[in-house]
Amino acid sequence: MLSKNQIKLINKLKLKKHRAEMNVFVAEGIKTIKELLKSNLKLQHLYTTELFNIETDLETLISEADLKRISFLTTPNKALAIFEIPKSKPIDLSKLCVALDDVRDPGNLGTIIRLCDWFGVQDLICSVGTVDCYNPKVVQATMGSITRVNINYIDLERFVTEVNVPVYGAFMEGENVYNHTALNDSGILIMGNEANGVSKPIEALITQKITIPRFGSLQATESLNVATATSILLSEFKRRTIER
Amino acid sequence: MLSKNQIKLINKLKLKKHRAEMNVFVAEGIKTIKELLKSNLKLQHLYTTELFNIETDLETLISEADLKRISFLTTPNKALAIFEIPKSKPIDLSKLCVALDDVRDPGNLGTIIRLCDWFGVQDLICSVGTVDCYNPKVVQATMGSITRVNINYIDLERFVTEVNVPVYGAFMEGENVYNHTALNDSGILIMGNEANGVSKPIEALITQKITIPRFGSLQATESLNVATATSILLSEFKRRTIER
Repeated sequence: MLSKNQIKLINKLKLKKHRAEMNVFVAEGIKTIKELLKSNLKLQHLYTTELFNIETDLETLISEADLKRISFLTTPNKALAIFEIPKSKPIDLSKLCVALDDVRDPGNLGTIIRLCDWFGVQDLICSVGTVDCYNPKVVQATMGSITRVNINYIDLERFVTEVNVPVYGAFMEGENVYNHTALNDSGILIMGNEANGVSKPIEALITQKITIPRFGSLQATESLNVATATSILLSEFKRRTIER
Repeated sequence: MLSKNQIKLINKLKLKKHRAEMNVFVAEGIKTIKELLKSNLKLQHLYTTELFNIETDLETLISEADLKRISFLTTPNKALAIFEIPKSKPIDLSKLCVALDDVRDPGNLGTIIRLCDWFGVQDLICSVGTVDCYNPKVVQATMGSITRVNINYIDLERFVTEVNVPVYGAFMEGENVYNHTALNDSGILIMGNEANGVSKPIEALITQKITIPRFGSLQATESLNVATATSILLSEFKRRTIER
């Protein structure tokens, strides 16, 4: 059985400040945990209703009732693991990186991490106002991709000011991405906040504004979701690498 | 003030069978409702905490407390409207249509409807096992696009058996979509269920299996989410129409 203290400690990890203090995060569900165990992540402890048969001092068999007490999910899924937050690696600007300017929705960030992994984007750069990638909902949505993408939280404006690579930005008014002649597989692709898009100070630093054109006669759709737009733009950047 | 009966009636509309019986659906939030009012949809009634100043017999001013009693959202957003479910129009197979084989997640269906609208896909065909497009979560996620896409729920296997157009399907193993030489702007693009992909009987009817290739060296991402995959494939189909 879990002690009150253990339960309290795990529940604290819902908040970013406690995750940062303790340098750990929570992952849930057999499938996600198995994915993370395959990676270089360091497991701190596993609480599970079905033994994984890993090192015994790292694993505690708990009841469904106890799992409910520590789970962040409405329907807990057999296991909850606590992993150490890994150190971020330096950003490699010789390849295409994605940067997020205050993306707030955990589902969107999770989808974008999964997309970076799929399209071989090694570096995801997040403004400090972007939702924390170790938020349990983000971890859940990445389906294990979080271990394969290098994520750095930085002062985005300062970073972009100092780099010397093409800075692409997604805008409603920009050059049609399909006809764009200079989509390179190096540089930074900046995606903006769900409600406000790319912020003004960052916009001033963009060297290439690109847009996904609307099709059809109605032209009434207001905008695409940021994760959807990221998928289309990454697809187009990466398609060009095949053509060359 | 709303009567108990009115509250009960509106709450019933959470369920598909009651929506079908009464031929109405619920939309929430000022922005979504305003979008829908601009369309051909017929408003049955609007319950709102701030008057819209439309025909008075169609509008009832209610309290925040009453809105909470009828809202399907955890944070109700000022207004709730009941619209008549419109009749679907016949499917136009001379243009590219999207078909969904048992897509279950309301967020995914909402995103796909919004994508169809963006990319000028007029017809979305749903298998009977696909989540109802008048599910409140779907209506919410479409951001008004639901009024601009013609959605038919049909026996997908029978329909696909009888058509005489290219039938594309998204698979993990198929022809690389970027190199595919025969992506036409007519035919049907079939997207499968979140967990199981395209079902076996439908798979047998596919004339062109297509795939979005993974990039990068790790090649470990398990799959793309169905809405994300739809965005990438529609982008690629529609890009070709510009090139021609």
